[in-house]
Amino acid sequence: LKIHSFLTALQGVSGIHRFLTDPADCWAYGVDNSKEHHLPDAVLFPTSAEAVQNIVQACATYQVPLTARGRGTGTPGGAVPIFGGVVLCFEYMNRIVKTYASDRVVIVEPGLLNGDLQKAVRQEGLFWAPDPSSQDYCTVGGNLAHNSAGPHALKYGTPRENTLGLVFVDGQGRLIKTGVQTSKGVVGYDLTRLLIGSEGTLGIIVEATLKLLPLPEKTITLQVFYRSIEDASMAIIRVLQSNIMPAALEMMDSGSLALIRQHQSLAMPQEACAMLLIELEGTSAGAQEAAEYLTPLLSGEGFSQLHKAETAAEKSALWAVRKALSPTLRQIAPNKINEDIVIPISEIPTFVHFVETLSHKHQLSIISFGHAGNGNLHVNILYDAENLSESKRATICLEAIFDKVLALRGTLSGEHGIGLLKKAFIGRELSQNTLDLMKSLKHTFDPHGILNPGKIFP
Amino acid sequence: LKIHSFLTALQGVSGIHRFLTDPADCWAYGVDNSKEHHLPDAVLFPTSAEAVQNIVQACATYQVPLTARGRGTGTPGGAVPIFGGVVLCFEYMNRIVKTYASDRVVIVEPGLLNGDLQKAVRQEGLFWAPDPSSQDYCTVGGNLAHNSAGPHALKYGTPRENTLGLVFVDGQGRLIKTGVQTSKGVVGYDLTRLLIGSEGTLGIIVEATLKLLPLPEKTITLQVFYRSIEDASMAIIRVLQSNIMPAALEMMDSGSLALIRQHQSLAMPQEACAMLLIELEGTSAGAQEAAEYLTPLLSGEGFSQLHKAETAAEKSALWAVRKALSPTLRQIAPNKINEDIVIPISEIPTFVHFVETLSHKHQLSIISFGHAGNGNLHVNILYDAENLSESKRATICLEAIFDKVLALRGTLSGEHGIGLLKKAFIGRELSQNTLDLMKSLKHTFDPHGILNPGKIFP
Repeated sequence: LKIHSFLTALQGVSGIHRFLTDPADCWAYGVDNSKEHHLPDAVLFPTSAEAVQNIVQACATYQVPLTARGRGTGTPGGAVPIFGGVVLCFEYMNRIVKTYASDRVVIVEPGLLNGDLQKAVRQEGLFWAPDPSSQDYCTVGGNLAHNSAGPHALKYGTPRENTLGLVFVDGQGRLIKTGVQTSKGVVGYDLTRLLIGSEGTLGIIVEATLKLLPLPEKTITLQVFYRSIEDASMAIIRVLQSNIMPAALEMMDSGSLALIRQHQSLAMPQEACAMLLIELEGTSAGAQEAAEYLTPLLSGEGFSQLHKAETAAEKSALWAVRKALSPTLRQIAPNKINEDIVIPISEIPTFVHFVETLSHKHQLSIISFGHAGNGNLHVNILYDAENLSESKRATICLEAIFDKVLALRGTLSGEHGIGLLKKAFIGRELSQNTLDLMKSLKHTFDPHGILNPGKIFP
Repeated sequence: LKIHSFLTALQGVSGIHRFLTDPADCWAYGVDNSKEHHLPDAVLFPTSAEAVQNIVQACATYQVPLTARGRGTGTPGGAVPIFGGVVLCFEYMNRIVKTYASDRVVIVEPGLLNGDLQKAVRQEGLFWAPDPSSQDYCTVGGNLAHNSAGPHALKYGTPRENTLGLVFVDGQGRLIKTGVQTSKGVVGYDLTRLLIGSEGTLGIIVEATLKLLPLPEKTITLQVFYRSIEDASMAIIRVLQSNIMPAALEMMDSGSLALIRQHQSLAMPQEACAMLLIELEGTSAGAQEAAEYLTPLLSGEGFSQLHKAETAAEKSALWAVRKALSPTLRQIAPNKINEDIVIPISEIPTFVHFVETLSHKHQLSIISFGHAGNGNLHVNILYDAENLSESKRATICLEAIFDKVLALRGTLSGEHGIGLLKKAFIGRELSQNTLDLMKSLKHTFDPHGILNPGKIFP
């Protein structure tokens, strides 16, 4: 009933491209990559910041929950409207508002696809550093909501390091402009980074000023095979203790390589049980020198082979394999627990050994790969949900992994966020005092409790 | 009276190294580099986080204002206890708690001097990027409070990009742990960056986890002279549109060069009216290649001379001149308005031309220098405070500069903060909605209003 009053109140408000209220139409907007689902009462497609303000104000008046949505690629369920209400869809707010190429700044709307942004600024010789695997079909707004990064965060940072300012609508419908258009600034509180990673619970981003970087002159990709994951992880430590900072340093374990062997054609030595993918960027001479410098560090115990890819075709073949891993895994293992824990670099060997032992003990396949240069591993526990014993063992493994991560001074999420699926675990990492302060902060931004309710907090 | 009850309540609390209550002893703790002064009622020197919690709780109970203090090097008066009360001095909380060299992480107490931190981690081949000119006598806690950076922020960022986590005490005396010890993390809200730059108004930082970087193999410093500041600023644009990112790019105008000519011995061509100092860091070949690549871009209209400094002695002589500018200026011009505005790179020529015109029009010497690669200029308006007309003209110039900066999409402060002296101007940059939200956020963190009251907000 309140939803009807709400919708009536919005009749005639300009800047709303479409209203969906038929459950059949709304259905697809109730799910994201977590596979959780809850039907929203309505789906709205705003086309302006003012429309978003009007919608938020109406939600506040009628106590209607509001969940902002990019393209639903998030894995922990952040975009699922678990209390129904309204899903706010940014498909029609996807413009590049203005590019200041000389200042390396671009102003965009939140519904712009990351990949479309990259294509546009590439023409100016620039790129935006965050590059999730899903970049061709995830939005900048979603990247900001979860601080989603990707391989190149190693050298260039996450959205927090690559966003200069935001315009957002708070839970009272007020338009707030925060941050700067310059590479430095300290005027008032840093609401920009506070909003980034807040998963739509503090405000609705309607515009973002992003920091761009110049495309490097030269990129060299090294593909290195090892006999064991422990050997590969020791090589990572040697590389990251040098003063060469790779642009990306990805790791794949034996399970990942088995998948690749089955589903893709990529030559690799028989004995290989782990692979590193290292990207070096810089001037021509600088990148070459970096590759020469790293080569002996990459050899050592358990080293098998090193390939240096220099042509665009070779490089994109290597990355295609890496980027296909996550979707391939999803195909073959519909029930997987997909985590994105982070551990300090020096603890990677301990951690991968722990996971191997756990996998043997509970007889479950656990496949790890990801942004090892940041210590950010995607740990996938595969199980058959119809098999009660397997489901139970998967949960035991998950809890053991989280506890180990925290014991090793790590964190439960590097780039996916907490959303719905990890909120039961947040109390293991954050103290009650910290959670209480965060909750009061949520109340300050959203006194009516309408913004993506039921997320982050247990 | 309330201060006496407060001090009585703290008797016997452990972890307080010293109490000062004699006005003669307290006097020096009532001033900072703003030259504003207000006598505190007491100065306390905590030695532990627990002591800070006890002090904050007592301040809340007795409604005593609390101003945290590093070494008082800040220029906008952030450390001046304008309502008296307690100054909390971190001189005895200056330890390096733990260094994880392989993870490039160090955990420190807030009273540690930036320079002492650099000396300690240099032994491990590492550095912390923020390097204010005052680094030998300013604290890490102060750097965090104001997000203070320095020349190398161009390539490596400010404290916000180089701090992983914090432990702080909120206005209710609760101990809050936020952030991570890894290079990525998105669990709960980003209170780390929110505290950074909040000038002691949201919480008292008692421990910081800092991100370290490897010392570069090779550094090359280029010193380039131009016939005019406009010519120098066009060269900056050419450099920053290339895909070489200098570690630092500093600019000095004719007034700065005149000062150097008078007070220092540094050879420079007669016709030089502007100087750039550019630092290139990387592998040996990489840095050399970058220097060769930039050299033709640095020539052009108004170019006079280029010197390449490679020996440590040459380089430190160049930097000594740059770092001495601010103190020298202070000596010769006791009354100066020292601003640190930021403008987009592409607007530097327009801005420096504007300042020159303004200086002529109002017959006041305005000296600009600073971190031009970030568009962050320290604009110094020199005047005689005894001369009423000059004082008035100085204020007119200041207001005109602020308005111009905002019209050019800039910001009023890059690294000094707002403190006391700039709070009258913050409303020109931030909307009332934004200020209102920031004030409620302040109330959430500090419901009793005891943390550095009277700062930031008008």
